[in-house]
Amino acid sequence: MKKHNFYAGPSILPEYTIKNTAEAVMNFAGTGLSVMEISHRSKEFVAVMDEAISLVNELLDLPAGYKVIFVGGGASTQFCMAPFNLLKTKAAYLNTGAWASKAQKEAKLFGEVVEVASSKDKNYTYIPKNFEVPADADYLHITSNNTIYGTEIKTDLDLGVRLVADMSSDIFSRPIDVSKYDIIYAGAQKNLAPSGVTIAIVNENALGQVERAIPTMLDYRTHIEKESMFNTPPVLPVFAALQTLQWLKAQGGVAEMQKKNIEKASLLYDEIDSNKFFKATVEAEEDRSLMNICFVMNDEYTELEKDFMELATSKGCVGIKGHRSVGGFRASTYNALPKESVEVLVAAMKEFAAKH
Amino acid sequence: MKKHNFYAGPSILPEYTIKNTAEAVMNFAGTGLSVMEISHRSKEFVAVMDEAISLVNELLDLPAGYKVIFVGGGASTQFCMAPFNLLKTKAAYLNTGAWASKAQKEAKLFGEVVEVASSKDKNYTYIPKNFEVPADADYLHITSNNTIYGTEIKTDLDLGVRLVADMSSDIFSRPIDVSKYDIIYAGAQKNLAPSGVTIAIVNENALGQVERAIPTMLDYRTHIEKESMFNTPPVLPVFAALQTLQWLKAQGGVAEMQKKNIEKASLLYDEIDSNKFFKATVEAEEDRSLMNICFVMNDEYTELEKDFMELATSKGCVGIKGHRSVGGFRASTYNALPKESVEVLVAAMKEFAAKH
Repeated sequence: MKKHNFYAGPSILPEYTIKNTAEAVMNFAGTGLSVMEISHRSKEFVAVMDEAISLVNELLDLPAGYKVIFVGGGASTQFCMAPFNLLKTKAAYLNTGAWASKAQKEAKLFGEVVEVASSKDKNYTYIPKNFEVPADADYLHITSNNTIYGTEIKTDLDLGVRLVADMSSDIFSRPIDVSKYDIIYAGAQKNLAPSGVTIAIVNENALGQVERAIPTMLDYRTHIEKESMFNTPPVLPVFAALQTLQWLKAQGGVAEMQKKNIEKASLLYDEIDSNKFFKATVEAEEDRSLMNICFVMNDEYTELEKDFMELATSKGCVGIKGHRSVGGFRASTYNALPKESVEVLVAAMKEFAAKH
Repeated sequence: MKKHNFYAGPSILPEYTIKNTAEAVMNFAGTGLSVMEISHRSKEFVAVMDEAISLVNELLDLPAGYKVIFVGGGASTQFCMAPFNLLKTKAAYLNTGAWASKAQKEAKLFGEVVEVASSKDKNYTYIPKNFEVPADADYLHITSNNTIYGTEIKTDLDLGVRLVADMSSDIFSRPIDVSKYDIIYAGAQKNLAPSGVTIAIVNENALGQVERAIPTMLDYRTHIEKESMFNTPPVLPVFAALQTLQWLKAQGGVAEMQKKNIEKASLLYDEIDSNKFFKATVEAEEDRSLMNICFVMNDEYTELEKDFMELATSKGCVGIKGHRSVGGFRASTYNALPKESVEVLVAAMKEFAAKH
């Protein structure tokens, strides 16, 4: 039976990426060697890295002065890397969830941290609005999409302060105005590649302004200068990322992705809102994530949760269990998830309603 | 034509690892999903991580109190992570090459660093002996195998000081007495897995003794406590590592590997020493690496370098170009390289000698 992959991350990748990667594991670029056992300095892999960097530039329409790097260590390493490189005296953090909160905690090792707002009071089910950012903050850190809670900042904030954004779970899901950001970083394992590689987009002009010594591997300039080849990069994850970037371009780029993502999310939110057995955990439409759609059984039907999980599973849906801190269900509808998978889940919800 | 993969890293992996990984990219553990698109918290992947950790324990016979972690970021990140966690006031470093030197440079951000000895005077073609280590050093850092220069410390040093070792290119190539080390770390892309994952073996008793604040991702305790699942680990590289660990065990473990590695290296060194067209760059037998065998054309035949490269290439040998700072040739003979590949290279050397 076909599986419908709703995992929150690592998560569904295009068939194009999977097929090409499987082939390259056996024979990479006609070398007769696996992509897992070839030097990162071979001309075949240098071409992969170059094209991947070039496609990120093209797909996100990077302004001059912005550089793309591929590094290891996950977005969690970026939590300390961003303040290591940018925090002079004071940084502002918007607390929209567990990961945002972890990022904020790391920044405190480097200077004063102002939490401009938090939605912790309601288990992070909304995005705070109308908060003030200190005019002297070096940057405002945001987590654009909160995978656990299903909230998303779907526009580029314009608050008169430079932005640093963790876009791990919504990068490449919509066009962004990169010029508003000093750093955008993303663990690749949602919309791009298998886990093991992190992408960072860095405004070069923002670097070199802190006094502290920065360990070489945590200095963005190291990786920019060596074009992500200072040390051995995660070769296979970068190869897989390139496949997805090629696929994204062939699909029409991030504007087309946004259109499809809105379509998929609307389909599911509409069913959640109209089906009396379910309710969304995020109420405000503007805060609802297009990537992670969280819903629970409506109050009088909580005892039916297991039944619905069984029904959805019987239809081939996997990875729809909600995070333990939210409960219920979470359907992740990343770029690579076909509309058909959402339709299967919606049909299961309708069947469930008809049955009960 | 069959390729003989002598790349220094990323480098040859067992066919078992490559075949199983290619299969898992298409369908992982019967889930119907790719190993690239499944949650690291799925029971299928948790089983992979558990078995990988358990096999490292078994293969290296870890004493009580030692923990194995799999992290991202490469060995280069360990250059700062080790002193972040262990350097109280003073550390000793043995300078045996470019990577050893980079490790030493990072440590200077954290305290006093004593270079106990260096072989830089002779382009790192030997391992310094009879050096003194300050009795009050928190540790002595060594690079057990120097990939670029082809030197190796083939025994566990016993100098009355705790060891921190970068074993990126010779881990699992021989039995080691782990009890002599506080930290052993290794980028996986030589004897274990594709690039993108680093293994660290940590003496828990050595941790928690520094005063400084450590960023969460750079604190070994984070990864030990969460069993390498604090953040999303590099799922596919860990899966591939597990395949190699299973293969290592099936081959008879690291003692058997050592036997085969000595056999392969002797075959090639013997030819280099007896063939008048070539000479080894490392003279002392005890310093010669069993992993990376560096050789150049003998003085009167330097103009024939290109000719031999062409001949070796025509026999299917790839990755034998020496590092630019040494020149000539480098044949990397890691665990997964079959004796047959060394025989092909040796035959090419004999054929070359007969021809000229």
